[in-house]
Amino acid sequence: MNGFNHFSPTEIVFGCGRINEIAQLAARYGSRALLVTESMEGPLAPTFARIKSLLEDGNIQVEQFDGVIPNPTTDVVTRGADMAKDFGAQVVIGVGGGSSMDTAKAIAVEATHPGTAWDYNCHTDGPSERTLPIIAVGTTAGTGSQATQCAVITKTADKDKSAIWHRNIFPRIAVVDPELTATMPKSVTAQTGFDAFCHNFEAYLSVNTNPLVEVMALDAIRRVVEYLPRALADGSDMEARAQMSWVDTLGGFTNSNAGVTLPHGLGMQVGGHCPNVTHGQALAAIYPEFTRYTYPSAVGKFAAVGRIFNPALEDEDDDTAAEKACVAIDGFLKQIGLWIGFKDLNVTKEDIREIADCGQVLGDYLNNPRVAGIDEMYEILMACYERK
Amino acid sequence: MNGFNHFSPTEIVFGCGRINEIAQLAARYGSRALLVTESMEGPLAPTFARIKSLLEDGNIQVEQFDGVIPNPTTDVVTRGADMAKDFGAQVVIGVGGGSSMDTAKAIAVEATHPGTAWDYNCHTDGPSERTLPIIAVGTTAGTGSQATQCAVITKTADKDKSAIWHRNIFPRIAVVDPELTATMPKSVTAQTGFDAFCHNFEAYLSVNTNPLVEVMALDAIRRVVEYLPRALADGSDMEARAQMSWVDTLGGFTNSNAGVTLPHGLGMQVGGHCPNVTHGQALAAIYPEFTRYTYPSAVGKFAAVGRIFNPALEDEDDDTAAEKACVAIDGFLKQIGLWIGFKDLNVTKEDIREIADCGQVLGDYLNNPRVAGIDEMYEILMACYERK
Repeated sequence: MNGFNHFSPTEIVFGCGRINEIAQLAARYGSRALLVTESMEGPLAPTFARIKSLLEDGNIQVEQFDGVIPNPTTDVVTRGADMAKDFGAQVVIGVGGGSSMDTAKAIAVEATHPGTAWDYNCHTDGPSERTLPIIAVGTTAGTGSQATQCAVITKTADKDKSAIWHRNIFPRIAVVDPELTATMPKSVTAQTGFDAFCHNFEAYLSVNTNPLVEVMALDAIRRVVEYLPRALADGSDMEARAQMSWVDTLGGFTNSNAGVTLPHGLGMQVGGHCPNVTHGQALAAIYPEFTRYTYPSAVGKFAAVGRIFNPALEDEDDDTAAEKACVAIDGFLKQIGLWIGFKDLNVTKEDIREIADCGQVLGDYLNNPRVAGIDEMYEILMACYERK
Repeated sequence: MNGFNHFSPTEIVFGCGRINEIAQLAARYGSRALLVTESMEGPLAPTFARIKSLLEDGNIQVEQFDGVIPNPTTDVVTRGADMAKDFGAQVVIGVGGGSSMDTAKAIAVEATHPGTAWDYNCHTDGPSERTLPIIAVGTTAGTGSQATQCAVITKTADKDKSAIWHRNIFPRIAVVDPELTATMPKSVTAQTGFDAFCHNFEAYLSVNTNPLVEVMALDAIRRVVEYLPRALADGSDMEARAQMSWVDTLGGFTNSNAGVTLPHGLGMQVGGHCPNVTHGQALAAIYPEFTRYTYPSAVGKFAAVGRIFNPALEDEDDDTAAEKACVAIDGFLKQIGLWIGFKDLNVTKEDIREIADCGQVLGDYLNNPRVAGIDEMYEILMACYERK
């Protein structure tokens, strides 16, 4: 066995209705909580209001910062951090998708450190243990942010996108209540669900994987193959929702320990250059070419995943099963309504040139079993332009 | 999916040679470390001396408390805690088997709290966050203590055995360096290795199990079946040693989240009444009757484990596979030299009566898929008296 580190300190409180425990969980850290959410004008307003009431009924004083936006910016974080400081918040509770949880993490840093959250991003020493305790409550099932040390933020001034990646921003607690995901629209279910698949699959493939990541990731992939189509067929299927919430959490565990690889690295650049493309859409566009580029360098692993998608591949040798895994993943994208090319997403060929040129800004591509140069990235992306 | 909590905050630093990082890991918490070990007269003295040097060479001041004994007592803990206080220790490093790691945990509590460690046992509210940071370094592969919130201690005055079981005594870091286990005698390898199997198997069976515990436990069982016999056949087989160190760590993760069941509950009482019987021996004596008592209430799980031991059971139905799992576990005990009855261990029939009468003192038996009364416990134990 090779050496590795494994660290997943977030306490997972999982199950339908567990959000009812939010006040007693918050009380571990004090009596003043900053609740971080998207706007109260949006569809999740009743959920946010309910959580605020639960906290107040449990004798937690709450200030709500409802300024979260997709791809959260440093300006937004600063407004939230100022509110936290004025209020004397003792715990920050992020409720929503990845944007809300990431904003909560960044606020927890900026409220307790000089400068802005940006000053503690992954190119620095990162934030200290003074970071306020964070509780994460997901309302989607895909980002895994409830169990990671990552907060993606964009610097408002120059639109530079980066992340805080540091052990001190792991949420102390993740309340994973599948009932909170039940109102997710079908498109968001598909896109975030595919993102959860990608976290697990890429962490499994990563050159930095470890034996615990491997078993968690394969278990997650088994669940996503069975339950994402079910959640799409019937959004009120709570068993399917619960399974996807668990897959999502496993993706946080796996991604935070083994990292992600080429598609996530490129997908981040797609999001940076074309903000209207969601993260899940970008991944879906890239995957068919990514799989074919990568499988010859990870035959055993692609074969194992192929056999999950298609048990008939048990009877094939690894080389054949690995090749057919790419076909199986294509089929899955079609099944979940994400068989799309960049053209469908209004990403131009000029955009693709710029995206490829930035393809090595983040180090994720180095985790891939086959490491791509800029020219190869361009070829991969161009081959994803149009899907038939 | 049912609700559950999962919490494993210990950072795992795994791999051959990783002990060389001990000084930089300890430096996270300060510059004064109390090293907690068994006597420098024993066989591990060179290991302890090496670790002390590594720390000192890395500018960590070290005081060594080498008073650890098997089944550590409150007197021992108090002597160590006094040393920690006098020294102003900022981190406590336990090196050895479960006794050393558990003593380190108890010292970390007593050094920072009024009264003695006993005052914070599992019948109390437990220790606060003032508990000193703990680093665990295992030299056996079985107790899982490096990744648990448990410290078993015996009250010297009245020989009452109990445990601190609290989130604040999870080690911050577990250095799992398989090379440190290479000198373990064959008997200790077998007994601790079987204990690691039991942690995983019982956590898998536990009524408090969860989906992550289940995949970790099955993965651990696959590894123990393959690698414990290899480690016994050749103690210098480092791949086998590494696999067993990982199985041991998984056992800590699974046991700390799902608990253990009937055999561990009874095994603790055997240890309390007959201190010359090791924990692994007690479990080995109990298992053949425990499995037959329990499998009708957990047919699917016994079948799954039976098929790991004996892949030919894939062709049998679950009822048959579950029944034959008991036979397979018997075979494993024979293979690893632990096919023993209480008679072989000098446990008398009078002892068994007393052990059974204490069988419900700890709550572990309630986790078993089939809950035993005192009379049933007596019958189970009596049936373990003599092995043929």
